Amino acid sequence: SISQDIDHILEKQSALAVDLGGTNLRVAIVCSQGIVVKKYTQPNPKTFEPRMQLILKMCENAMQDAVSLNCRILGVGVSTGGRVNPEEGVVLDSTKLIREWTSVDLRTPISDAFHLPVWVDNDGNCAALAERKFGHGKGVENFVTVITGTGIGGGIIQHNELIHGSTFCGAELGHIMVSLDGPECSCGSQGCIEAYASGLALQREAKKMNDDELLKGEGLTTKLSEPITAAHLINAARLGNAKAVAVLNKASTALGVGIINILHTLNPSLVILSGVLASIYEEPVKHLIASRALLPAQSTKVVTSDLEEPALLGAASMVLDYATRRTY
Amino acid sequence: SISQDIDHILEKQSALAVDLGGTNLRVAIVCSQGIVVKKYTQPNPKTFEPRMQLILKMCENAMQDAVSLNCRILGVGVSTGGRVNPEEGVVLDSTKLIREWTSVDLRTPISDAFHLPVWVDNDGNCAALAERKFGHGKGVENFVTVITGTGIGGGIIQHNELIHGSTFCGAELGHIMVSLDGPECSCGSQGCIEAYASGLALQREAKKMNDDELLKGEGLTTKLSEPITAAHLINAARLGNAKAVAVLNKASTALGVGIINILHTLNPSLVILSGVLASIYEEPVKHLIASRALLPAQSTKVVTSDLEEPALLGAASMVLDYATRRTY
Ligand SMILES: [Ca+2]
Ligand SMILES: [Ca+2]
Ligand SMILES: [Zn+2]
Ligand SMILES: [Zn+2]
Repeated sequence: SISQDIDHILEKQSALAVDLGGTNLRVAIVCSQGIVVKKYTQPNPKTFEPRMQLILKMCENAMQDAVSLNCRILGVGVSTGGRVNPEEGVVLDSTKLIREWTSVDLRTPISDAFHLPVWVDNDGNCAALAERKFGHGKGVENFVTVITGTGIGGGIIQHNELIHGSTFCGAELGHIMVSLDGPECSCGSQGCIEAYASGLALQREAKKMNDDELLKGEGLTTKLSEPITAAHLINAARLGNAKAVAVLNKASTALGVGIINILHTLNPSLVILSGVLASIYEEPVKHLIASRALLPAQSTKVVTSDLEEPALLGAASMVLDYATRRTY
Repeated sequence: SISQDIDHILEKQSALAVDLGGTNLRVAIVCSQGIVVKKYTQPNPKTFEPRMQLILKMCENAMQDAVSLNCRILGVGVSTGGRVNPEEGVVLDSTKLIREWTSVDLRTPISDAFHLPVWVDNDGNCAALAERKFGHGKGVENFVTVITGTGIGGGIIQHNELIHGSTFCGAELGHIMVSLDGPECSCGSQGCIEAYASGLALQREAKKMNDDELLKGEGLTTKLSEPITAAHLINAARLGNAKAVAVLNKASTALGVGIINILHTLNPSLVILSGVLASIYEEPVKHLIASRALLPAQSTKVVTSDLEEPALLGAASMVLDYATRRTY
């Protein structure tokens, strides 16, 4: 009928985006302009089988909704924590944040279920892809994104493409070390920027300060009994707590030195900070680059991302950019 | 005549290679197999005019000798300390080791004098090119070379090509920082691997030890009056001087941590150490990677270069690889 034909013409080219994090499993319908048309969130199951089933179930629901929303799904893009072989669509291994997530072929079951092409990459790399397509990285040949959240992730665009590395652990920027010893890191090493400047690192310091009854701001003199987070430390610093300021300064310095190390290796023209702590770190990082980077690296632009959903948008961008050429 | 025709057939395709270092200016005729057919060495003049004149004079001598040596010179390749724009053939700026060496167009005068194409790149990048064509980097898509000499230089091959960076200061690997504070570096920052592990850094520590009368090996109990170098420190360590061993361990740890930072950024399959200190550092660097790198980065091969003239061979390789396509 004519009305169906018009519907077809009005269909929006879209992607199904999946984001597998330590806490949540999320699926979204994302249209080619980078708008999240609809989003679904569930707790990420702790074991393999229920997790795979939930991924397929959520994707199926989204596929059905996509029809009524006039979104034509060109493929499925998956962003996941852990190390990924994007050529094979396989999760190679993962940190303890996502258990039972080693040697997992995501492409085959999703592709079989929906007869669609499937792309998979790690969350840091997806964040970089999101910036390349929808964010500050648009049209920038060489840039780096550093995501400061619970941990620290990263993604590198070099000559407009991601650097994956020879064993798919390129851009593990959270594990750049800025001390010969320094605080212990989840990776088993010490002195990584993740161990200084991540949300977990700030929470660790906040807890220590609270135990020592040092986490007090104005009118707050005793130990807190509520769960202590990085936000407590940041608030205490804002209220002028000198110890909290010192901890935050050290975290910023560590992050800044780590980022300068990236500049002296790759010399990108742009660094995009994202994640919940990005805005906290932007100014100190700029300041450190001005004082400690080589002169020609001081021209590097540093900005905070304005994307709300870098992982989902990056996952979607693989579909939107690669579906027509069908390259993995 | 027939004899001239045979001469022509027997001509070896060759390059003129120029190496501009802090101490010497060297020119060489290098044939396509990577053999240095003839080499010329002069002290590098301290000022611009005499230096440019000497470069042209030495190249002219070499051009004349090339005829009698049956080497057909396809072009001139220049390796220089400092930062280079290889597209323009211009030295942008330099450390204090080479004075009056800022905004120097090397391509135009050399090309005008000899009617040959001219390529210019920095010494660390040339070392990487040399490894790619003649050394351990042959056929390796992603590798990094770290040159530990008086200073520390570097070069990065990614997808078979050099990374130059957005302002031509990529692969400034000597200025990767491994401490939030640490020893002062020639670049103005602190804690750079060059400030821990370069020849100058070891010499600095050796001098301190000698001043404190601590630089004694077997049968050596008083202060030395001869010029103290890194070699004194290395010897003292070999003779079991505990303080010297500790200094060398710290230098090795710093270099190793810096190299792991490169692995967690680029994840190359190979790291090639070159320069006079390479063999000293190879084992400790391997050990550190095994204990502090992410598991998938532990598979990175680490080798010591077996090239005797990385800068000259790298300069020559630009000519030999690019002369036929005439790309700069
Ligand atoms: Ca990554
Ligand atoms: Ca270099
Ligand atoms: Zn770590
Ligand atoms: Zn430095």
